[in-house]
Amino acid sequence: MKIEILKENLKKGLAIVEKIVGKNLSLPILDNVFINTEDSFLNLSSTDLETAIRFWVLAKIVKKGKVVVPAKLFSGVVSSLPDEKIIIEEKNQGLFVECKNFKNQIQGFNPEEFPIIPEFKDTEFLEVDGKRFCQGLTQVVDVASFSQSRPEISGIYFIFSKNTIKIVATDSFRLAEKTIILDKPIKKDTSFILPQKPTKEIINILGDKDGNIKIHFSPNQTMFESLMEEAPGGHPHPQVQIFSRLVDGEYPNYEEIIPKKFKTQVVLKRDEFLNQIRTASLFTGKVNEIKIKVKPQSKEVEVFAQDPDIGESQSSILAKIEGEPIEAAFNYKFLIDGLQNIKSSEVIFDLSKEDGPCILKPMGDASYLYVVMPIKSA
Amino acid sequence: MKIEILKENLKKGLAIVEKIVGKNLSLPILDNVFINTEDSFLNLSSTDLETAIRFWVLAKIVKKGKVVVPAKLFSGVVSSLPDEKIIIEEKNQGLFVECKNFKNQIQGFNPEEFPIIPEFKDTEFLEVDGKRFCQGLTQVVDVASFSQSRPEISGIYFIFSKNTIKIVATDSFRLAEKTIILDKPIKKDTSFILPQKPTKEIINILGDKDGNIKIHFSPNQTMFESLMEEAPGGHPHPQVQIFSRLVDGEYPNYEEIIPKKFKTQVVLKRDEFLNQIRTASLFTGKVNEIKIKVKPQSKEVEVFAQDPDIGESQSSILAKIEGEPIEAAFNYKFLIDGLQNIKSSEVIFDLSKEDGPCILKPMGDASYLYVVMPIKSA
Repeated sequence: MKIEILKENLKKGLAIVEKIVGKNLSLPILDNVFINTEDSFLNLSSTDLETAIRFWVLAKIVKKGKVVVPAKLFSGVVSSLPDEKIIIEEKNQGLFVECKNFKNQIQGFNPEEFPIIPEFKDTEFLEVDGKRFCQGLTQVVDVASFSQSRPEISGIYFIFSKNTIKIVATDSFRLAEKTIILDKPIKKDTSFILPQKPTKEIINILGDKDGNIKIHFSPNQTMFESLMEEAPGGHPHPQVQIFSRLVDGEYPNYEEIIPKKFKTQVVLKRDEFLNQIRTASLFTGKVNEIKIKVKPQSKEVEVFAQDPDIGESQSSILAKIEGEPIEAAFNYKFLIDGLQNIKSSEVIFDLSKEDGPCILKPMGDASYLYVVMPIKSA
Repeated sequence: MKIEILKENLKKGLAIVEKIVGKNLSLPILDNVFINTEDSFLNLSSTDLETAIRFWVLAKIVKKGKVVVPAKLFSGVVSSLPDEKIIIEEKNQGLFVECKNFKNQIQGFNPEEFPIIPEFKDTEFLEVDGKRFCQGLTQVVDVASFSQSRPEISGIYFIFSKNTIKIVATDSFRLAEKTIILDKPIKKDTSFILPQKPTKEIINILGDKDGNIKIHFSPNQTMFESLMEEAPGGHPHPQVQIFSRLVDGEYPNYEEIIPKKFKTQVVLKRDEFLNQIRTASLFTGKVNEIKIKVKPQSKEVEVFAQDPDIGESQSSILAKIEGEPIEAAFNYKFLIDGLQNIKSSEVIFDLSKEDGPCILKPMGDASYLYVVMPIKSA
């Protein structure tokens, strides 16, 4: 293999594929990037066996071939080179990297040892606007949390039905649901559970790209793909593909726990409420408990926290209130997470009873809701 | 105690005094800030027994008094309050902090338990331009390193003589020396060793302040002081004071190890050289060893590193060279540290013999030098 490539392009590709490369002591081959030539492209691949990434970079292919080298080292070397044309050449499993007055030689590995990354050919897929999709994922992804006993809720649940995608996550204390409307309806309804880590990589890698994302799926795998903005000859060509295995198991019937009726509905300013919760959080002990008191008569919501060793904090915020007075205790972290996922300046807070699930949602946007359980009073 | 104060002013003061406050398990009183009233100021103090900080904030004193409260908590509460006037009131060792629709109460401690911070009255002092002084400290401070067996070299050595301050640090592998010229000569020559941590605090706290710093000293303590930019009534008033104990012991006669003669002098571009060393560093093993080869004939310096498991890196940089060909091995980290302390675009690199000390210094600035020992060849 021998190729010529611009430093900036190669650096960009390596920065993406190395995201999932760590120090894998039991399987050191996974610390590497698989590099091979494809037509007028250099293809970079990495995998941690759960997620795999493939990235294509335009290059001048002098001689075809493939090579496997440590990803962090190769990326570090390329980053430190001048902004010039780089010549990369494979010799006896080693990679020679030359640029201007730099000559580097990186020890490589046998390409046959690198895990095979699955191909998606003629599989079903649908298309969605990348930025809108990733923004939706961001509002949901952090709510999931690793669970040994219930692996299905460690992942993010995707439901594709007619012209909508629903994205759901829960850790059993709270739940977030985002609905995205598609431009054209899906051919066949489906659903799957994607692990949290690849979901985060999708946001990281595809979140700021213009254009559509193609979502391919097979019974136990999925692949998210974005195309090159300017491919040679105008033929569409993938820029990046993110593969992930799916989580086995059935997602709980989450819609059951979303309350439909409320005792009290509150509308308040998001930033002010968030700030008051943060202040109160300084006065909570180990249970992270703060109290929310809704007072329809004085049209205010009080935020209160107390710990005998620390002191106490009390603040109030004016609110539009419909319904009865109510008081409930929450883990402040769960309220902060929910409010941070909401971007509107006003937020709707629906409370049912002291120990029943409550809902936070953006004002004027029915596409997102965040269900949170109060802390039961002792 | 009862006072009125602007949030921003109080927040700024707390941010400074809390810098030296950590979690002190054996002496929890040190987690606190000591707050007392002085004329029309609120004075905030903190100490970790090695360093102490005092900061003055303009306030409306309704009732005099003093109080001791957890520094991080108080700072957190103040930061989270709206940008308004805050009312602070002490009641039974507790502190009430009120602002707009916030009411907080912080549990405090007995002010008598707080360590006494020494006063410097009528002690000797000298004045130096704050920015110039702190910039000099920055070029030296990180070279010192903690040494149980030789505590004197853990600190930064200050030599005040005639119209100069010399600032020196070493870890026995390398040494940095900065000379600052004063506007007027010092009354009496002196020298002391300041621990590294307070030296860093001086840079952090006083580094971006305009105007002079006053350096007070007594036989075993020192205090660095900057004045308020606008004190009430135009009377000079301290803004911040940083106290530190001094390190016992005699600093080694460091001038002996600064070589006076060289075999070879090299002048090269700092950024390019730094970049080549960083690239080579990726190919070093555990000893961090890179080789520098000076080649007068081809007017270039070669940077080389090799590790059988990783590969090798070779690069070259054009240089002005006077003297003989020479080759020496260095810990790349020491070269990077030295080059980073030099801000000029060209750097002078003096090499004597393969295992003798070398010097890095800025081009056209005799006030700084960085001595570095090569790694002895096996």
